[in-house]
Amino acid sequence: MSKPKLYIVKIGGNVLDDSEALQQVLFDFSQLSTAKILVHGGGKIATRLAERLGVKPEFHNGRRITTAEMLDIAVMSYAGLTNKNVVARLQSFGVNAIGFSGADGSLILSKKRPAEPIDFGFVGDVEKVDADLLKKLIDLNLTVVFSAITHDGNGNLLNTNADTIASEIAIALSEAFETALLYCFEKPGVLLDGDDDSSVISELPHPDYKNLVENGNVHSGMLPKLENCFHALQAGVAEVRVGSALMLTDSKAGTRIKL
Amino acid sequence: MSKPKLYIVKIGGNVLDDSEALQQVLFDFSQLSTAKILVHGGGKIATRLAERLGVKPEFHNGRRITTAEMLDIAVMSYAGLTNKNVVARLQSFGVNAIGFSGADGSLILSKKRPAEPIDFGFVGDVEKVDADLLKKLIDLNLTVVFSAITHDGNGNLLNTNADTIASEIAIALSEAFETALLYCFEKPGVLLDGDDDSSVISELPHPDYKNLVENGNVHSGMLPKLENCFHALQAGVAEVRVGSALMLTDSKAGTRIKL
Repeated sequence: MSKPKLYIVKIGGNVLDDSEALQQVLFDFSQLSTAKILVHGGGKIATRLAERLGVKPEFHNGRRITTAEMLDIAVMSYAGLTNKNVVARLQSFGVNAIGFSGADGSLILSKKRPAEPIDFGFVGDVEKVDADLLKKLIDLNLTVVFSAITHDGNGNLLNTNADTIASEIAIALSEAFETALLYCFEKPGVLLDGDDDSSVISELPHPDYKNLVENGNVHSGMLPKLENCFHALQAGVAEVRVGSALMLTDSKAGTRIKL
Repeated sequence: MSKPKLYIVKIGGNVLDDSEALQQVLFDFSQLSTAKILVHGGGKIATRLAERLGVKPEFHNGRRITTAEMLDIAVMSYAGLTNKNVVARLQSFGVNAIGFSGADGSLILSKKRPAEPIDFGFVGDVEKVDADLLKKLIDLNLTVVFSAITHDGNGNLLNTNADTIASEIAIALSEAFETALLYCFEKPGVLLDGDDDSSVISELPHPDYKNLVENGNVHSGMLPKLENCFHALQAGVAEVRVGSALMLTDSKAGTRIKL
């Protein structure tokens, strides 16, 4: 018997920061007729809140450090304001959405990243997704909405990469579902030329990806995103696509990642 | 066959604002061996956040008005920071806690209070608790933790009285469970003399309450709290007590409210 289909859709900052765009994306998401999970990043809400509170973001070589104060701000913004507003909007579209951090139901257990060689602060790397409980919640016709906050099981919340949360959830649920992982971001897909939105690569097998990296077509932020994609495919996720939110309504939109 | 027992415990600001006291209360709560639900208010976190953001609280005859900006602050503080930290701490005590606003799973649907005669802003009065879904979550051995935020089903979040949320949940679940509703607050119980903590009334039947109100022993904030208690008893809640968090470990602590 074939497995039921499950979409895991990750939406990023560009959508979260634009109330009208968010409304459209959530509507399109609500129209997916199969089981589905939404994972959202933080967007600029946390940054703006930090600015208003006079909390200066700290960086190490361009990478953000999550201080105790920034963690509180992330929890308030991501798990509070964004998560609950997304849930309420999805409810208005008839989706029985239910919003979580990884601490809820201990659905995503993570481990604080070691302080050596660089101390990134209260950042967690995913250790375990409770696929069994997630499946039971899906079986109750609930649509889970995850914010990018997890916990360590010892009472501490941790800031966690939303792309990784999406891929780890997709992997964990691939035994029970035919999983499709969609990474929605500000570009229409993986571009051959980063400055040309019409240069979308429709299919990206791993050997081609290697070439693109060597030639410098794909670089910086796209590298960890695409590594997540290949990792998910290798670990059993049936389908992985990267592109704009058009992917929710057009199965040909975006870049399909392949092994 | 007798119904299984379910505790609904509401904790207030005095506990939430004291990290050590909160840790003890959550530990005591974790030791309750029956099914249980925790409801928390906001405490001073939202007030402090508003002050730091330069948002002035607005009042009408001493009653707080929830402006759009204050609603965002309440959602961030209650449904975000407080709720997720409470959940993470309970997880560290081995309780599979899961944190919600009323929007999650549409567990608590409310209606925006009419703007006439006084516009209190984004405040919701509880319309419906989904007892069926709550029971299914309890059957999954999950311990639900509610923040005092609900939704109207049309995409809007609403600030809601935590005492009312606790009583409405207790009422809704009284068909399936033998419910015990515990209101933990800063006093050891209902006091005969508000200035004397040793004047706890151990049992308060409704006729005695009427006399206390007439004589002025019970007044101001205690009135709506106790009205909630009697309403809950009339609507099928098996046991209602008001007092300090000692009630979690001492069945004789606090004031037992009776019809």
